[in-house]
Amino acid sequence: VRIVIVNVNTTEAITESVRRQAAAVAASGTQIDAVTPFFGPTAVEGYFGSYISAAAVLDRVAAVTGDYDAVIEAGFGESAQAGLQEMVDVPVISITEAAAHLACLLGHRYSVVTTVNRAVRQISERLLVAGLNTRCASIRATGLGVLDLDRDAGLAMDKIAEAARLAVAEDGAEAICLGCAGMVDLRDRVAAAVDVPVIDGVAAAVKLAEAMHALRLRPRPAEKPSVPPEIVGWPLHRHLNLGTSPGKELSRVL
Amino acid sequence: VRIVIVNVNTTEAITESVRRQAAAVAASGTQIDAVTPFFGPTAVEGYFGSYISAAAVLDRVAAVTGDYDAVIEAGFGESAQAGLQEMVDVPVISITEAAAHLACLLGHRYSVVTTVNRAVRQISERLLVAGLNTRCASIRATGLGVLDLDRDAGLAMDKIAEAARLAVAEDGAEAICLGCAGMVDLRDRVAAAVDVPVIDGVAAAVKLAEAMHALRLRPRPAEKPSVPPEIVGWPLHRHLNLGTSPGKELSRVL
Amino acid sequence: VRIVIVNVNTTEAITESVRRQAAAVAASGTQIDAVTPFFGPTAVEGYFGSYISAAAVLDRVAAVTGDYDAVIEAGFGESAQAGLQEMVDVPVISITEAAAHLACLLGHRYSVVTTVNRAVRQISERLLVAGLNTRCASIRATGLGVLDLDRDAGLAMDKIAEAARLAVAEDGAEAICLGCAGMVDLRDRVAAAVDVPVIDGVAAAVKLAEAMHALRLRPRPAEKPSVPPEIVGWPLHRHLNLGTSPGKELSRVL
Amino acid sequence: VRIVIVNVNTTEAITESVRRQAAAVAASGTQIDAVTPFFGPTAVEGYFGSYISAAAVLDRVAAVTGDYDAVIEAGFGESAQAGLQEMVDVPVISITEAAAHLACLLGHRYSVVTTVNRAVRQISERLLVAGLNTRCASIRATGLGVLDLDRDAGLAMDKIAEAARLAVAEDGAEAICLGCAGMVDLRDRVAAAVDVPVIDGVAAAVKLAEAMHALRLRPRPAEKPSVPPEIVGWPLHRHLNLGTSPGKELSRVL
Amino acid sequence: VRIVIVNVNTTEAITESVRRQAAAVAASGTQIDAVTPFFGPTAVEGYFGSYISAAAVLDRVAAVTGDYDAVIEAGFGESAQAGLQEMVDVPVISITEAAAHLACLLGHRYSVVTTVNRAVRQISERLLVAGLNTRCASIRATGLGVLDLDRDAGLAMDKIAEAARLAVAEDGAEAICLGCAGMVDLRDRVAAAVDVPVIDGVAAAVKLAEAMHALRLRPRPAEKPSVPPEIVGWPLHRHLNLGTSPGKELSRVL
Amino acid sequence: VRIVIVNVNTTEAITESVRRQAAAVAASGTQIDAVTPFFGPTAVEGYFGSYISAAAVLDRVAAVTGDYDAVIEAGFGESAQAGLQEMVDVPVISITEAAAHLACLLGHRYSVVTTVNRAVRQISERLLVAGLNTRCASIRATGLGVLDLDRDAGLAMDKIAEAARLAVAEDGAEAICLGCAGMVDLRDRVAAAVDVPVIDGVAAAVKLAEAMHALRLRPRPAEKPSVPPEIVGWPLHRHLNLGTSPGKELSRVL
Repeated sequence: VRIVIVNVNTTEAITESVRRQAAAVAASGTQIDAVTPFFGPTAVEGYFGSYISAAAVLDRVAAVTGDYDAVIEAGFGESAQAGLQEMVDVPVISITEAAAHLACLLGHRYSVVTTVNRAVRQISERLLVAGLNTRCASIRATGLGVLDLDRDAGLAMDKIAEAARLAVAEDGAEAICLGCAGMVDLRDRVAAAVDVPVIDGVAAAVKLAEAMHALRLRPRPAEKPSVPPEIVGWPLHRHLNLGTSPGKELSRVL
Repeated sequence: VRIVIVNVNTTEAITESVRRQAAAVAASGTQIDAVTPFFGPTAVEGYFGSYISAAAVLDRVAAVTGDYDAVIEAGFGESAQAGLQEMVDVPVISITEAAAHLACLLGHRYSVVTTVNRAVRQISERLLVAGLNTRCASIRATGLGVLDLDRDAGLAMDKIAEAARLAVAEDGAEAICLGCAGMVDLRDRVAAAVDVPVIDGVAAAVKLAEAMHALRLRPRPAEKPSVPPEIVGWPLHRHLNLGTSPGKELSRVL
Repeated sequence: VRIVIVNVNTTEAITESVRRQAAAVAASGTQIDAVTPFFGPTAVEGYFGSYISAAAVLDRVAAVTGDYDAVIEAGFGESAQAGLQEMVDVPVISITEAAAHLACLLGHRYSVVTTVNRAVRQISERLLVAGLNTRCASIRATGLGVLDLDRDAGLAMDKIAEAARLAVAEDGAEAICLGCAGMVDLRDRVAAAVDVPVIDGVAAAVKLAEAMHALRLRPRPAEKPSVPPEIVGWPLHRHLNLGTSPGKELSRVL
Repeated sequence: VRIVIVNVNTTEAITESVRRQAAAVAASGTQIDAVTPFFGPTAVEGYFGSYISAAAVLDRVAAVTGDYDAVIEAGFGESAQAGLQEMVDVPVISITEAAAHLACLLGHRYSVVTTVNRAVRQISERLLVAGLNTRCASIRATGLGVLDLDRDAGLAMDKIAEAARLAVAEDGAEAICLGCAGMVDLRDRVAAAVDVPVIDGVAAAVKLAEAMHALRLRPRPAEKPSVPPEIVGWPLHRHLNLGTSPGKELSRVL
Repeated sequence: VRIVIVNVNTTEAITESVRRQAAAVAASGTQIDAVTPFFGPTAVEGYFGSYISAAAVLDRVAAVTGDYDAVIEAGFGESAQAGLQEMVDVPVISITEAAAHLACLLGHRYSVVTTVNRAVRQISERLLVAGLNTRCASIRATGLGVLDLDRDAGLAMDKIAEAARLAVAEDGAEAICLGCAGMVDLRDRVAAAVDVPVIDGVAAAVKLAEAMHALRLRPRPAEKPSVPPEIVGWPLHRHLNLGTSPGKELSRVL
Repeated sequence: VRIVIVNVNTTEAITESVRRQAAAVAASGTQIDAVTPFFGPTAVEGYFGSYISAAAVLDRVAAVTGDYDAVIEAGFGESAQAGLQEMVDVPVISITEAAAHLACLLGHRYSVVTTVNRAVRQISERLLVAGLNTRCASIRATGLGVLDLDRDAGLAMDKIAEAARLAVAEDGAEAICLGCAGMVDLRDRVAAAVDVPVIDGVAAAVKLAEAMHALRLRPRPAEKPSVPPEIVGWPLHRHLNLGTSPGKELSRVL
């Protein structure tokens, strides 16, 4: 099983921690390839960055060579999943949905703990479209930017744990989803701070991808238009002179 | 990993095919124990049978000895899950929800193909309560009773495949859930008849249980009352003189 | 008119107070028969107890002899109604729904005041399935167990009245439903504490049953399967050596 | 118990049949006073007529002298109920809601059979606002005007029965509400044509009013403004030189 | 372009300020005719007044002579729009909907700041029926009556600004709708008090009416019944000896 | 007033017809600048193209110099609006929402007539997120690709008119939204084919933009992060060596 995980931002350190977390939970026999977009924001914190990122995510996955069995979009609340799913014939799993699906299996209501205020609207719209909103008790922002998580991990940990505690105590959450791919390293410590399960969407998505592979479940291939429209400048990384060379396909060569 | 699967009816043949299907998809290292309730309907086809079955399911799981890591309730549209989850501290997964969760990951909208007309209301109420209804395109009844599935497998297959085809063509389903534990043997053949993924909830639940175990995710233990009410006649199988003897714990000895 | 009221727990004192309350509001000419299940929890406080109770309720009603015109399920938030309705051809009224229907006729929004925290989820799911949730302003738990209501009626009264006052003041409730059959005796005192109508579901259900009888309204008989599945061990009370003997049909002889 | 029923149109024959139907189901000891507005449409078939009628209904009830225990607004899908409820301190019951409440107690889903196409929107908005829409399977128009019901009762009967049959067969209705006060006389014949219960809202409202009276349930009196606005020209019937003289209070003297 | 604006109450000063506000935003070439009902409440603060007002609004518009291109109902949360739209073939715009539509274009969620508590239910039901409720963050009552707005403009201003500030800070509103036609004069001052756009529904409706005229968009004429029911006493102003004389058509002559 | 309209595809002919249609309805004094993205699909027909387009739309608007008063995103069902709104401080109007808002003012329910099947999901998710779905009767696909509209205008016209007629006759639509910016030239002819108003979103958006300008309504500026993340490769057109040179700012120079 080969799973491609695409980060939504261009911060290699986050790609790296996503890769580490995914590898830690992957079954033996699962190969994890985590890739970083060739362009786009170093952190996605709102719709403006999200839509630049979505194109970069499509572009980055288009540059992946060889066969793979699933794609994971490692951005919480992000948008590219439906676009990726039209591009490839294997399951494409967003970590937002992966986390929420497991959360629904673990408790009656779940909460999301995320970064900045602006992410709240975006996450709630994503859950609404995914039909996963009715059991969402709350989405709590910590006020931390994506890149703050790394800068002061102690402070980040405190704020995330506090938000999780409030979600349990005041909103009735019985499970917590970590609402940012940058939080994956903190899962165990957050879990120690509350008495409900804490779900990292990357890990959840890896196991769901493996499950779908084991069950030989693949989405119906997307309907292709008889005359597909041309795409000027696509794939972008070629036109940007970024991207892959033989033997380096999964590294960013910017 | 030890997974207990509890059938909702008292038909051993269905327990057996559930066990077989579960074992076929289980990872190496996963032990599947499928059990049959000590009392209750031979087939559950409506709320009357469902509520007798729910008590029997609780009773049967109470008789399971030894440790286990997950419980699967193998009845589509059935009710015991929330009760079981108060009883044990491991994840309890209903096949209704397991199938619907995977279906949501595989297509925009999914349909359920089930047995008798009366099951439609029950399944739709279960999906509503689970918050999994908004992406459900339709629930189609074949008119077949649970026990008809076995009596004339050819006819059953035809009707199920036809309902699945209509769900795809008319309701826009991009994934099909088999809406009865008695249909698990037919999955591959139904899948061959339509061009969308076909999901058997038992298999789905096994993989989700394994995923939760791998991720060390367990639900918060249910709040216990300080003074628990007594339960007259509980567990029922003891008072009915049914149930387990040493070394035979997982077999029905009625 | 003969109305059978089935308590959901095995506490005779609650059956007795339900009977008293029902008789107090029944029209002359209405016969009230309140019965207690032969087995099951002394108090239902969550889904585990609820599903044991549901089977016991079906079993108990199956033991009632003679004709009757309506069945009332006297458990707030409980589950057996839809099962009972498949079993008998007369109206089966749950006190949850009866209370909520009258509440909707009496005010724009209503609240439910109930016992333990865990009941909140169960009541809200019941109202959701019944389509009666949109005008429900809140469900407030007092933290009292079902059996606490009787042990310290003064304390119970204080807590219930306080919850009702908060529902009016903070949630905008214009009617209050007593969310437990064990609260029926307290209705008048709670009503004195708030300036909105207070509804006891048992009384409400009695009057609705009488109304339906007067209007000659009966549900369509439930579709019966051509080959009904067998039910192993049914009715349970016979196999448990509980139940009725001539002349004592409505008493519990455990 | 004295119940005032206010017709929403100015057709005395409909007031008369409403009175007859109400009296037929009223308990002994219940006095039914049916009144006709002093002005307004002879039939209400849309929002234009509905809003004229609503003012006329308020005006007509304002002219009723003496005490009464409940008011029933006898117009299906009509609007005055919330206004009446601010005017009087006894329960005000719309026949739309009364019928739908009983329908929900009698079947899983119900349908409404009404007159002209335009009424469909109005009824659906009324049920939405009342929170009674989720179990409504369909609202079917017969194309008959309110006054056609009387002109050719045979044709009316055929069309209503046909719509009811379709609601059962195609929409899954398990109860039918007659969606026009002008249909009350036809209830028994429609009921004979389908195998599900058929509910006349006037009869339903009478029994609900009696039930509320028996249970001593009254809505909280409407909050009165400290300085109530003046109402120019109110009550309208005085300014229109219509209305009541001593001893004739309940008759229309136009 | 000629736009008729009908106040919902009989307070000429409010009609006057509505007219002023409308004229201030109207394009050159737009003629604004603001009219006052011939009868009805001096202020509408609940459903009782609203339904009297609705009939008076229909009646007043029926008295307008000459052609016009749009009708605006200048009452927030009021009910006549759907009735007016069956009466005339030009667009009829309620200020409630006009304000909410623009608010949705200006921010993710909006709040309404209104007068008395009782208006909250009415506004929320109007937004629900209009399908404009999902993005409404809150409806906040100031406790001020409609006529208080004029009596102590300073106090009114303080309370409205405070409610708007709370809506932004606590409810997440990104736009504020002034929830009463009597507030139109205060828009600029409220806008100065918060950092989100503040929308007066009268101004919004004028621009929407102009837009529809420029785009030659008119609603489909309402279906007329083949045999329209008679309306006793209609139009009311004639029977009340109120209304228009030649050359004075738009003034109130009571 | 200067309004920037950004096409979502790279087909200049569509930009041109959008510009023409916008200019035709703009007030005198309104300057329309229609721009084409520097890269991206020649037609957007699904989420894959939509997300490439969204980045291209952000990129193209970033290249616009000088002040402007509103931005219109001319792609039905497309996604960039929320991203654009974080980028600029003037109103950003999507034609999807503009059309739906006017449709709600013109009829009780509206339908959308669009191009390929795949657009249906995308449009319905956009309306859901915008809270404009509840009055949407249907979204009907003609099966025509975006670029087919121009290739055979006669056939396109026939299919669109037929879909509109069915929406009126079968779905109860009282207004039709043209669900593709490529359809703007056909509006008058479609309008001639049905008896309900037909709305072109580009024209609607222009008038709404003018209305907001006249009312001095601007959205609250988007919260800016204290440390905005860097965006690698942004704006894309610079890195792609596309884009603007002095005096040519609004033309595409690829």
